[in-house]
Amino acid sequence: MKRVLLSHGGGGEDTWRLIKEVFLRHLSNEYLNKLEDAALLEVDSKIAFTTDSFTVNPIFFKGGNIGKLAVAGTVNDLSVMGAKPIYMSLGFIIEEGFPYEELESIVISMKEEAQKSGVLVVAGDTKVVPRGNVDGLFISASGIGKVLYEGISCSNVKAGDVIIVSGGIGEHGACILAQREGIQMDVELESDCRSLWDLIEKIIKSGVEIHAMRDPTRGGLSAVLYEWAISSRVSFLIDEENIPIKEPVVGLCELLGLEPYHLACEGRVVIALPEKDAEKVLNVIRNHPDGEDARIIGKAIPVEGSPKVILRTFYGTHRVLDPPAGELLPRIC
Amino acid sequence: MKRVLLSHGGGGEDTWRLIKEVFLRHLSNEYLNKLEDAALLEVDSKIAFTTDSFTVNPIFFKGGNIGKLAVAGTVNDLSVMGAKPIYMSLGFIIEEGFPYEELESIVISMKEEAQKSGVLVVAGDTKVVPRGNVDGLFISASGIGKVLYEGISCSNVKAGDVIIVSGGIGEHGACILAQREGIQMDVELESDCRSLWDLIEKIIKSGVEIHAMRDPTRGGLSAVLYEWAISSRVSFLIDEENIPIKEPVVGLCELLGLEPYHLACEGRVVIALPEKDAEKVLNVIRNHPDGEDARIIGKAIPVEGSPKVILRTFYGTHRVLDPPAGELLPRIC
Repeated sequence: MKRVLLSHGGGGEDTWRLIKEVFLRHLSNEYLNKLEDAALLEVDSKIAFTTDSFTVNPIFFKGGNIGKLAVAGTVNDLSVMGAKPIYMSLGFIIEEGFPYEELESIVISMKEEAQKSGVLVVAGDTKVVPRGNVDGLFISASGIGKVLYEGISCSNVKAGDVIIVSGGIGEHGACILAQREGIQMDVELESDCRSLWDLIEKIIKSGVEIHAMRDPTRGGLSAVLYEWAISSRVSFLIDEENIPIKEPVVGLCELLGLEPYHLACEGRVVIALPEKDAEKVLNVIRNHPDGEDARIIGKAIPVEGSPKVILRTFYGTHRVLDPPAGELLPRIC
Repeated sequence: MKRVLLSHGGGGEDTWRLIKEVFLRHLSNEYLNKLEDAALLEVDSKIAFTTDSFTVNPIFFKGGNIGKLAVAGTVNDLSVMGAKPIYMSLGFIIEEGFPYEELESIVISMKEEAQKSGVLVVAGDTKVVPRGNVDGLFISASGIGKVLYEGISCSNVKAGDVIIVSGGIGEHGACILAQREGIQMDVELESDCRSLWDLIEKIIKSGVEIHAMRDPTRGGLSAVLYEWAISSRVSFLIDEENIPIKEPVVGLCELLGLEPYHLACEGRVVIALPEKDAEKVLNVIRNHPDGEDARIIGKAIPVEGSPKVILRTFYGTHRVLDPPAGELLPRIC
């Protein structure tokens, strides 16, 4: 089996071969092909700029792999700020001995995922480190988007705002956890990993007012709501029975004693918006293949004491949702 | 000793504490402080966009550390494309147990290095991975620059162009190698790691014509000249006695049987430009503290057969310089 060697990261002939055979072959465009130290780009407006490192373990999981995740994650971070993803960069840190074929199949998924939103990979970097210095493959990704809707901010949620979730929560986290621990559920867990630009573009184009928007990754729904609560000085009242969660996610959480609201999603969006536009947005989302299970889950309420997230449980009682804390799940994304 | 824990990467309270105590404390600015999924930025022109991952081992070396290197490397990749560095993003991948104090001292050097060129860190990401999944700390960095000079390209070197190097070559590579192997030289080897924007801005502002410009990192001077040779279809005739190399670098290369022209620099620039402007640029560089040892090292010549780099040796003979190949030195940057 052909493997990535240290020489592929040395900056010499083997590096050039790897770049041509794997990266340029699949990600080719007029900017990247120039292979300059920096890509020269035209932008004509306010831009959004984001970065993330991806260390997910396992590298291949049901519903995606680290490459798809890196592209979708970058696309989503731009999209939730109201920005159309236009350019991205990729940095690969590869462990010596990593299978060449696996690297190529990861790059191919990146190409496919990038095509969904039209984002172009215009800059990249490859490092190969000796065996044992990194576990397999890490990818860093940065993205530039053109801002099409302004005013979205985690500090912009108002009491009275309605909270919408675009689909079942916790599926990425549950999938990774099950796969890592070798747990088989009756219905197989699959990551929700996907690019949200197409869905979010339709929401923006519907002409509604959006106060805050976020993809609930590390720390899950709970992290997003607590960040908004603290930044916007509001509390949330959430109806537990309205939170979309698929059966196998519930099952895994019961099995392991986990809070599903802390589990990462990689293809869901949470939106806070004025009540007047809530039904309209819900319809837009539900009519999109990435949002069929969308639900209104609750609303922002005036804060009393410290900002908190209150769940109205299935039994009609109320409990305060814990903010995510502790180790949770390392290498979830 | 306080150490980075897995919980610092979990996306919960500990993550927020780390971000506030270490990253925002030193890198604070109006964009980064918002902690949104993407920073919203104003740009009004053509931009340059670059990315790099930094895996240098050892993390602290004479003349710098991985943080200074990440900032200087990003600044330099923008600068050599004629772009003023304005914004950058940072991604930290930290091994569980990494000393908190060391992380902070790295962030402080990043702050200091960023101030030299005025670049702002506007976006970031932190991952903590379990012990053994990464060796210490890797940093990814991306940068956005405002293009002030257009036309620089590795495919733009013309036969007749003069080649200038801004200072002693191979110092970063030699320093890392000596420190890693525990080799003591009479005069201590120090990395040339530095941000080149101030120097390059002065070159651009002098009104000269620049054909190609590059900081010779991985693969050293040889890699830059071969990339230019192949992209521009020229050869190079280089006077070995005019290449600035400090004594301890020569000594280490003799000791280990290495080619100094393959050793990485992290604070030098190589320029190809028309002969008419060569003396002017040389003066500009020599009058700058980062370019006192600048020299004209040779020129581009018409290609015969395949593009190559020909060295006129100290003895007056000619030899073809090898392009960098093989493993060279992993984790040099």
